[in-house]
Amino acid sequence: MNIAQRLGYSENSKLLIIHADDAGLSHSHNRATIKCLQAGLVNSYSIMVPCPWYYEIALFAKSNPNFDCGIHLTLTCEWKNYRFGPVTPISEVPSLIDKDGYFYKTRAELKANAKPEHVAKELNAQIQKALLFGLKPTHLDVHMYSVGAHQAFFEIYRALGATYNLPLMINEQLIEMTGLDAKKNIKHDDVVTQKVLIGNFDIFTNGTLYDYYSKAVEQVVPGLNVLLIHPAYNDSEMQGITVNHPNFGGEWRQVDLDFFSDPKNMSQFENEDIHLVTWKELKVLL
Amino acid sequence: MNIAQRLGYSENSKLLIIHADDAGLSHSHNRATIKCLQAGLVNSYSIMVPCPWYYEIALFAKSNPNFDCGIHLTLTCEWKNYRFGPVTPISEVPSLIDKDGYFYKTRAELKANAKPEHVAKELNAQIQKALLFGLKPTHLDVHMYSVGAHQAFFEIYRALGATYNLPLMINEQLIEMTGLDAKKNIKHDDVVTQKVLIGNFDIFTNGTLYDYYSKAVEQVVPGLNVLLIHPAYNDSEMQGITVNHPNFGGEWRQVDLDFFSDPKNMSQFENEDIHLVTWKELKVLL
Repeated sequence: MNIAQRLGYSENSKLLIIHADDAGLSHSHNRATIKCLQAGLVNSYSIMVPCPWYYEIALFAKSNPNFDCGIHLTLTCEWKNYRFGPVTPISEVPSLIDKDGYFYKTRAELKANAKPEHVAKELNAQIQKALLFGLKPTHLDVHMYSVGAHQAFFEIYRALGATYNLPLMINEQLIEMTGLDAKKNIKHDDVVTQKVLIGNFDIFTNGTLYDYYSKAVEQVVPGLNVLLIHPAYNDSEMQGITVNHPNFGGEWRQVDLDFFSDPKNMSQFENEDIHLVTWKELKVLL
Repeated sequence: MNIAQRLGYSENSKLLIIHADDAGLSHSHNRATIKCLQAGLVNSYSIMVPCPWYYEIALFAKSNPNFDCGIHLTLTCEWKNYRFGPVTPISEVPSLIDKDGYFYKTRAELKANAKPEHVAKELNAQIQKALLFGLKPTHLDVHMYSVGAHQAFFEIYRALGATYNLPLMINEQLIEMTGLDAKKNIKHDDVVTQKVLIGNFDIFTNGTLYDYYSKAVEQVVPGLNVLLIHPAYNDSEMQGITVNHPNFGGEWRQVDLDFFSDPKNMSQFENEDIHLVTWKELKVLL
């Protein structure tokens, strides 16, 4: 039986999670994420524990347990002037930080420097910090899919899923994007995300990102699909964070917010072919 | 000889530093501080090392050494949803943090909980972090004057001034505000700030803060004066930080920015009675 069948749907059913990444990154992100959740177009999100605005979104998550909320495991910080680092004391995970004490900007630098034992310690600490605060994460996923930087990191990710009994975002396209071998890293009983739907830089620069979202439903395939978005206001805070980084920059994120906070855009997903599911429901598959 | 005379001015000279606190707190604060410095109305500022936007303002400070720049030593975080904590691993300074791992909101909580050895360790670590990054601080001052929470903390502050050979913000009115005995804590060879000019909540709520600044020069007394401001944009980031905290909130900070970024407001300070000085110049008194 495939995932759909195991959840009680027919064999060729199309399951969809509309997921907002990067909550906690900024106040702008928190406000936008909450707006999209409340508008009903986003049914799942995940929080970056090491980020400056973590506390604000953690308060929201704690008092709104109805929304699916995961931990967006974080080992990289891609921004020029806005830097953050491990929740673990840096003296205990020195291989995860650059000379200024912050996370590396890229998966390549992470791969070149990070020791697996430090990766394991830090990712576990992020989950522990959230649990200690009283959060009840529904899943684990990964910022910039950095666990794909190294085979050993991916195995740590997998082990965390087992330890905490949480579904993981595991997807062939994301794994291959990082350079790891997808065949080797996907097991037959994994809760695999068949297809990740996400905008790309060409679509954004062409000015067709909103249009891409409006037709996203056409790309949904039988099995589990995750539509990944990063809603935020393109305000001065977000412009400061994403300066010199138009890829997933403030303008891009504003499009995500515009589309996924407008209830009239929900209609495409309200058809009998599409079943909106949550990670919470997927947990029964573990 | 008094401070003015030791700097080569006549006995009754009025020396003035126009000082922007809280740089590093937010992107909004950084942009506003830089605007005021560049407008020429602020001639000194200080950076909060533990804050999320520290890195951005530290980059600015490093490439703009012409501006007086101190370390705004930080032991408290007064905000509801925006929290930060020590730069030292929290396991090494557990008495400085609340149950969620962040600085206490008030001097009273700090006084009730903080151990002097943790205060000393953390404040030293903030200075070390700035030095390691290549900053050359011109002075030390204190967020919420929290070193006044306890006699032992004040002595740590004084010792840091001696260790790093930096002038300290020492002022009777600030010391007494914290409840310490000013007479006991001011020594005859200290570089004492005779008068601190700062708005208060009544002035702000009366809507007369801008007016207060426009007449600030009238309050300047013979000796060393520091006009303390907190410039920031009252944007969504700053509103998020200062939510439920109108005292020194976003609106207040916008007034500071409006006044101190407008070059025409400089004229009151450009008279022969007032000598604008910097902490850099005061260092010769140590």
